[in-house]
Amino acid sequence: MVRLAISLGDPSGIGPEVTARALAGLGPRALSPCLFGDRSFAAVAARAGLRLAVVQPGESLPAGGALVEVTRLAPADRKPGQPTPAGGRGQLAYLAAAFAAVQEGRCDALCTAPVSKAQVALALPGFAGHTEWLEERSGGRSVMMLASERLRVALVTNHLRLSRIPRAVTPDGILAVVEITARALSRQFGIARPRVAVCAMNPHAGDGGAFGDEERRLVEPALARARRKGIRASGPWPADSVFFRAVAGEFDAVVALYHDQGLIPVKLLDAVNGESAVNVTLGLPLVRTSPDHGVAYDLAGKWKANPASMVAAIRMAVRMAGGRQKSRASRRS
Amino acid sequence: MVRLAISLGDPSGIGPEVTARALAGLGPRALSPCLFGDRSFAAVAARAGLRLAVVQPGESLPAGGALVEVTRLAPADRKPGQPTPAGGRGQLAYLAAAFAAVQEGRCDALCTAPVSKAQVALALPGFAGHTEWLEERSGGRSVMMLASERLRVALVTNHLRLSRIPRAVTPDGILAVVEITARALSRQFGIARPRVAVCAMNPHAGDGGAFGDEERRLVEPALARARRKGIRASGPWPADSVFFRAVAGEFDAVVALYHDQGLIPVKLLDAVNGESAVNVTLGLPLVRTSPDHGVAYDLAGKWKANPASMVAAIRMAVRMAGGRQKSRASRRS
Repeated sequence: MVRLAISLGDPSGIGPEVTARALAGLGPRALSPCLFGDRSFAAVAARAGLRLAVVQPGESLPAGGALVEVTRLAPADRKPGQPTPAGGRGQLAYLAAAFAAVQEGRCDALCTAPVSKAQVALALPGFAGHTEWLEERSGGRSVMMLASERLRVALVTNHLRLSRIPRAVTPDGILAVVEITARALSRQFGIARPRVAVCAMNPHAGDGGAFGDEERRLVEPALARARRKGIRASGPWPADSVFFRAVAGEFDAVVALYHDQGLIPVKLLDAVNGESAVNVTLGLPLVRTSPDHGVAYDLAGKWKANPASMVAAIRMAVRMAGGRQKSRASRRS
Repeated sequence: MVRLAISLGDPSGIGPEVTARALAGLGPRALSPCLFGDRSFAAVAARAGLRLAVVQPGESLPAGGALVEVTRLAPADRKPGQPTPAGGRGQLAYLAAAFAAVQEGRCDALCTAPVSKAQVALALPGFAGHTEWLEERSGGRSVMMLASERLRVALVTNHLRLSRIPRAVTPDGILAVVEITARALSRQFGIARPRVAVCAMNPHAGDGGAFGDEERRLVEPALARARRKGIRASGPWPADSVFFRAVAGEFDAVVALYHDQGLIPVKLLDAVNGESAVNVTLGLPLVRTSPDHGVAYDLAGKWKANPASMVAAIRMAVRMAGGRQKSRASRRS
C-alpha cells in the first residue's frame, strides 16, 4: 500500500476538481491518498463521489486515506478563477504540509496539483515553482522528466533562451542528468540496466562536424564518462529520429539538451495519441510527480477540465514509490 | 491527367525499386509517369509488375507513361549498394533530363528519387543536393516543407548549427517563408485562405520576455508585415504546443525557425502514426516533391525498403500539380 501525499494546489484553480475526479475514477487501489488542502475540498470530493475522513494537521493519518484540513478559507478566497492572497498562502501551506508528511515518513511519495507561482510569490517572495522549492528544502539536484507510457524525456536545460543553450550545456551537466536518469530508471521504474539516449544539439548531430562541434566537445565526453561508470548511455543521436526510436522500445529514456527539443515530442504524443504525459522530478530524495498542466483559471469550477494527466501523475507516483520500496527491500536483503 | 517526371536517382540505391513498387501499388490513376533513368530500370519495373514503354531522350513522351532511357550503365555501375562514378554521372543526368521535361512543358511536376550527394559531386563539384541545384537553375528562392496528411511544416533555417540560429533568423527571412508557404497552400494545395502559424524561438515563446526577446524582435515584426499583406499569419506560438494544434486542424501549416524544431514532430508522426512525410520544395517555378529518405545502400537490391514515402511523394506531386492546373485555369477565367 502506497501512502500518497497530494498537495491540492491553488484552491481557485482546477487542481481540487481534477484530483477529486482522478481519485474517484481510480477506485479502490494499492493507494492510500492523503490530501492536503482546504476544508472545502470535502464537498468537491463528495461531488465526485469520493468520501474522505477529515483530519487536522498533526493528527495521525488513517490507513484508508484522508483530507488534512490545512486551511479553512472564506468562500471569497477559494472562488474558481479568482485567486486571492489568502489562497496563495494556502497553496504554499498545502505543499509544505504534504512535503513534511513525506519527509517524516508518514507518506511514501508526493504528487502536487498545480499552484499559481504569482499567488504563492505574494506570500513567499522569490518562489519560482514547486521544483525549485523542493530542491532547496531537500538538498537534491533535480532533473525534470516528462514521462508518458511509451516515452520518457529528461532535460539538461529548461527555461532558457535558445541563444544561451550552447554555453549552458556542459559535459558535467549532461553527465549529471544521465546519471540521475539512469539511477531513477533502475530504482524507481524497476528497469534493470536502463538504456539512456542523449540528443545531439545540432541537426543531423552536426553531420560529422559540418554544422557544429558541440556533439564532439560536449556530448561525447559526457557519454564516455557515463559509460566508464557502467551506464548504458548512447548518442549523440539526431534529435529528429531519437524520439521515435525510443517510442519503438530502443531506449528507456531520452536526455534532451533543451526544453523544446524534449517537450515537442512528449506533448505531441500526449495530445495526438492520448499518452498522458506526467511531470516527474528526479534527483530529489523523494518521489514527486505532477500533472503537465497549470491552474487553468478559465476552466476552474466548471468540472470540464480533463483529469487524465492527474490520473497519470497519481499512477506514476504510486508505481515509482512501489519501485522504490522494492528497490530498498532488495538492497537491504 | 498529370504528367509526372520522376528522376530515378542513384542506380545503386533504393530509388529505382521503391519507385517501381510505388507505381505498381498505385495502379491506374490520374497519372502518367515519365521515368528518367537507366535502361535497366525496365527489368526492375517488370519485377514489380509494371510494364513501361521505353523511349530515347528527345523522343516524345507517350500519354500512358514511359521510361526515358537516359543511360545504359554497365552492370558494375548499377550494383546495389556499390556506387561508382559512372552511376554518379547518371544520377545527375536523370535529374537534368527530368527537370528539362518540366521546364519545356512536356511534364507537369517533378518527383525526385534519392541521389548520393557525394557521388554526384564527383561529376559536378560543389553539388549540394537536389534543392540547391533546382534553385540555381530555376531562379527561385526555395523553402523546404515536410508535409504529411495532418501536418505541414516549412523551415526558415535548415542545416545550421544551433548557435547560429539566433542571428540567422531575421524578420525578412521569416516573412519570405510565410509568404511562399501561404502562396503554395492556396495555389498548390487548394486552400482558399490558409492559416499559417509561426513558431517562437524560445521555450514558452520567451514567457513575455523572461527568457528571450527574439519573439518580439524577429517574429512579431514579420507577422505584422505578413498580416498587412493579407496573410492569415499567427504566432509566435510556443513550439511545444503549436504542432498538435496544427494536427487538430487549427492551422494549415506551421513555419518552424530551425531544422529540429520542425522535423522532430513531422518525423515522430511519420514513424509512430504512419503519416508518410514527404519533402516538398516550395518557391520554385515548378512542383517538386521527394521521399524523406536517402539512398539506403544497406537495403538496396533486397526489395525490403518501404515504398510508403515514395507513394506519398508521388501522390503529393499529382495533387499539387492538379491544384496548380486548377489555380491557373481559374486565374485565366
